[in-house]
This record gives sequence, C-alpha cells and structure tokens, in this order.
Amino acid sequence: MAKALVQGASRGLGLQFCRHILERSPSAAVVATCRNPEEATQLKLLKSSYPNNLRILQIDVTREDHVQLAAASVKDDLGSLDLLINSAGILHPSKRGETSLKDVTAHGLEATFRTNTLGPMIMAKYFSPLLLKGQGAFGLTDRDKPHKGIIVNISAKVGSITDNGLGGWYSYRLSKTALNMATKNLSIELGRGKNKVICVSFHPGTVDSDLSRPYHKGVPEGKLFSVEHSVNLLMNNINNLKLENSGQFLNWDGTQLPY
Amino acid sequence: MAKALVQGASRGLGLQFCRHILERSPSAAVVATCRNPEEATQLKLLKSSYPNNLRILQIDVTREDHVQLAAASVKDDLGSLDLLINSAGILHPSKRGETSLKDVTAHGLEATFRTNTLGPMIMAKYFSPLLLKGQGAFGLTDRDKPHKGIIVNISAKVGSITDNGLGGWYSYRLSKTALNMATKNLSIELGRGKNKVICVSFHPGTVDSDLSRPYHKGVPEGKLFSVEHSVNLLMNNINNLKLENSGQFLNWDGTQLPY
Repeated sequence: MAKALVQGASRGLGLQFCRHILERSPSAAVVATCRNPEEATQLKLLKSSYPNNLRILQIDVTREDHVQLAAASVKDDLGSLDLLINSAGILHPSKRGETSLKDVTAHGLEATFRTNTLGPMIMAKYFSPLLLKGQGAFGLTDRDKPHKGIIVNISAKVGSITDNGLGGWYSYRLSKTALNMATKNLSIELGRGKNKVICVSFHPGTVDSDLSRPYHKGVPEGKLFSVEHSVNLLMNNINNLKLENSGQFLNWDGTQLPY
Repeated sequence: MAKALVQGASRGLGLQFCRHILERSPSAAVVATCRNPEEATQLKLLKSSYPNNLRILQIDVTREDHVQLAAASVKDDLGSLDLLINSAGILHPSKRGETSLKDVTAHGLEATFRTNTLGPMIMAKYFSPLLLKGQGAFGLTDRDKPHKGIIVNISAKVGSITDNGLGGWYSYRLSKTALNMATKNLSIELGRGKNKVICVSFHPGTVDSDLSRPYHKGVPEGKLFSVEHSVNLLMNNINNLKLENSGQFLNWDGTQLPY
C-alpha cells in the first residue's frame, strides 16, 4: 500500500497530486494537509469520492507545534510514509512579486520565507522519521541502492541564481533558492544511514494556478501548463527517481537545473 | 572623499573593515552601524582615534523603520555613499549550527534568515539611492563602464549548494544561499540604469571570529585567517572590482565560487 502525504493540498498542484495518486492507486493512503480544511471545498469533494483512502489534516506549516502533532497522528494511523510532497507556496503576501527594490518589505520577505522555505523544512524534520520507515512505493526500485521514501519540494526555476537574468520577485526568488539548499542539505543527512530518503526540488513549469494567474500574459503559447499536465509530468518523474537523483533540482522534463 | 558604510561593525570583520579604511584613507568618511553602540567598546575606541572621520549609528537591520531613519540621516550628512558592506551575521541564535534535523527549529531558521538575509536586503533597499549617487571611490575606475557605488554582502562558502558535501548548519546555509540570490537580483536591478552599483557576495575564508570560534579544531593549519588578514584580502578584491563582477559570488582569493 503506497502512502503519500501532500502538504498544501487545498488547491492547485497539491490538490491535483492527491487526485492523481488516488485515481491510479486504488489501495493508496493519501494524507492531504492544508491550513483551512473547512474552506477547502474541492479537497472535501475529493474526500467524498475517496472516503477510505483520503484523510484531510489541518496543518499550518509555519507552526512547529501543528506539524509535530500532525506527524504523531499520521504515525499512529499509517506507521510510515513513502512520499512527502511540500507543495504550498506563495509569491508574496500581496500576491504580486516585487518588480523593484522599493516594493521589498521585511514583512514580505519574512512571510514568503516562512511558507516557502521554513514550512518544508519543519515538515521534513517531523515526517522524515516516517519516510525512513517507508516501503519505497514511489520511485524506481533499485536493489543495489534501495530507498525508503521520497521528499519532493516544489521549487521554481526563478530560484536558480545561475539562470536569473530578469531580477525582481525578491521574496519568491530568495525563498526558492533557500528551499533548493534545504533539499540538498536534507539529501545529505537522509542519505547517510542504512535507510535512505531521496530528496529533490522540482520546477513544475509555468502552471495555470492562482499564484501565476496575474502573469499569464507574457507566457508563450504552449508553455502554460494545466495543473493536470504539470502533475502528470512530475509524477512520471517521481516514479523514475533513484537515489542518485537525491539533492537535485529538476525541471518538469527531468533535466537538471543549475542552482 | 571616499564614503563607506559598514553594517555590523561592533566587532569581527565589520569593525576591521572600518579600521582598515580609516587607516588608509585619511579623508574617508566611515559610517559604522550596529545594534548596540553602547556595548561596542572596540568601535567606540576606534571612534576616539578618528573622531571626525568615523560616525557610529544605531541600526537593528531587521527593523525596517530603523534602517529607513538611518538612511535619511546618512543622506543629510554625506549625500551619497561609495561602499556598503553588509557584515552582520549569525550562525544560529544558539551560536551552534544544527548538526542534524532534530536541532532545526522554526525560531532558528527565522532568526538566522532575518539577520543574514533580510537585513542586507533592507539595507540595500534604503541605501541604494545613496550608492547610485556615489563617486566610484572604491573599485577599479573603468571609463567605458563606470560604476557609482558597491554593495558587498559577506556570505560564506557553505552557502554554495553545489559545494555542499557535508550537510548540517541548516539555518546558516539556507540564509547565505538566499543572500547570494539577493546579491544576484540586486546586481540586475542596480545595473540597469545610467548609474550603476556593483553588487557582490564574498566568502571571507574561515575567520577567527566569535561566529567560528567553536569550530576551530577542524580547521587545517594556515587556513584560519585573522580578521585583519581576511579584511586585507577582501579590501584588495573590493578595490579591483569592475562592473563585470557584479552579481558574482567571490572567494577571498578573487576566484568565483559556484552557487
């Protein structure tokens, strides 16, 4: 039985990851977490289709006590996890990325860091013990170098320092760059012992979501992915992950992106 | 008259940057900022040797209102700046870097990000208008591609994702990686107009400072720099900066480090 936890599952990519796994794996156990389950209409609808396989859990990932309690509850329920997807992300609390320095605020930098970087780190802290007990249900089975679980951090190409040619979006870029370091650091610590967890960052492409909606005008034809298409691509990549990928920053097409 | 502002100048590298510039440039105006000037004994001693050239200013860089007021005051005094060095940094609020995930806390991640990343960003926001009016007193004079001012962010090699082979030190690594993105993003915005500011990140080497002191045992002979030696090397690099270096992450020997 494959066991996955998707953080930030109320909508967008997170919601679609839950749907994708549930539709393809009739025996899967999926834990969907979000800040306000009451308001997560689509997630509740999905729950009504998969009442036994989907569990909704309230977590504010910036609250360490929330995450700790949730991990204890998932441990009691499932005992282990095969996949953790950190999907929640904000562009900026104002929903608009900074176009120049004058738009940068301490509050914006901090709030974006908390959701996009600190959240995934705290999730990794409390859920990695469950992932280290996973059955390797996701990713490629490699007898020589087996893995137990997988952590996927949804990052963004604009978090690549090397690739940065346009500037702007300070809070978002800084938070995603730091998230890529988090992935690399986690891959080292969770690749050390006998039981190993693969950790990767993914760029999901430019996805038709609430986050990107104000910026669709500039996206070339065919480059704007639906959430379904992006999740199809990412799950295909996830199902092909091996331990040697751990620490990498991967594009939606499976190629490596520069840091 | 060369005009420099050094943030985090109460001790360590920051204090030595002030001393270095004052000793070599009799007409220089140096603004030294720190959180608690009252407790900055060595900085006050330096002030007594250079009463006309050194000005001490209280700034908590995590407080946007502080930085804004300080920038207005420096503008009144000096009108422009040639160099801003963001030197303040912490390893972790506990003064020990995390050796493993279990040591990671939301508080540690946040506090380290605030001082090491958010602080330099907010300094850049409010002081870049003064740097854009600088006289190019630091760095190489290039008639074809002149620059007005320089922003130096003191980063660290452990902020390189590519170079990360050991893991650990989550809060510090994430904050310095994000700082390197800040440098790159600033270099783009401040390299766009007619007046340009060079922005670089430096790895100062392993320096004999309060931050690194608990970790000196593992440093190979000759690789532990005194603050004087590190600042000599860095100021030599700063004096050789050209616009084409803007955005780079530079080692103490002037070579580029990978992101």
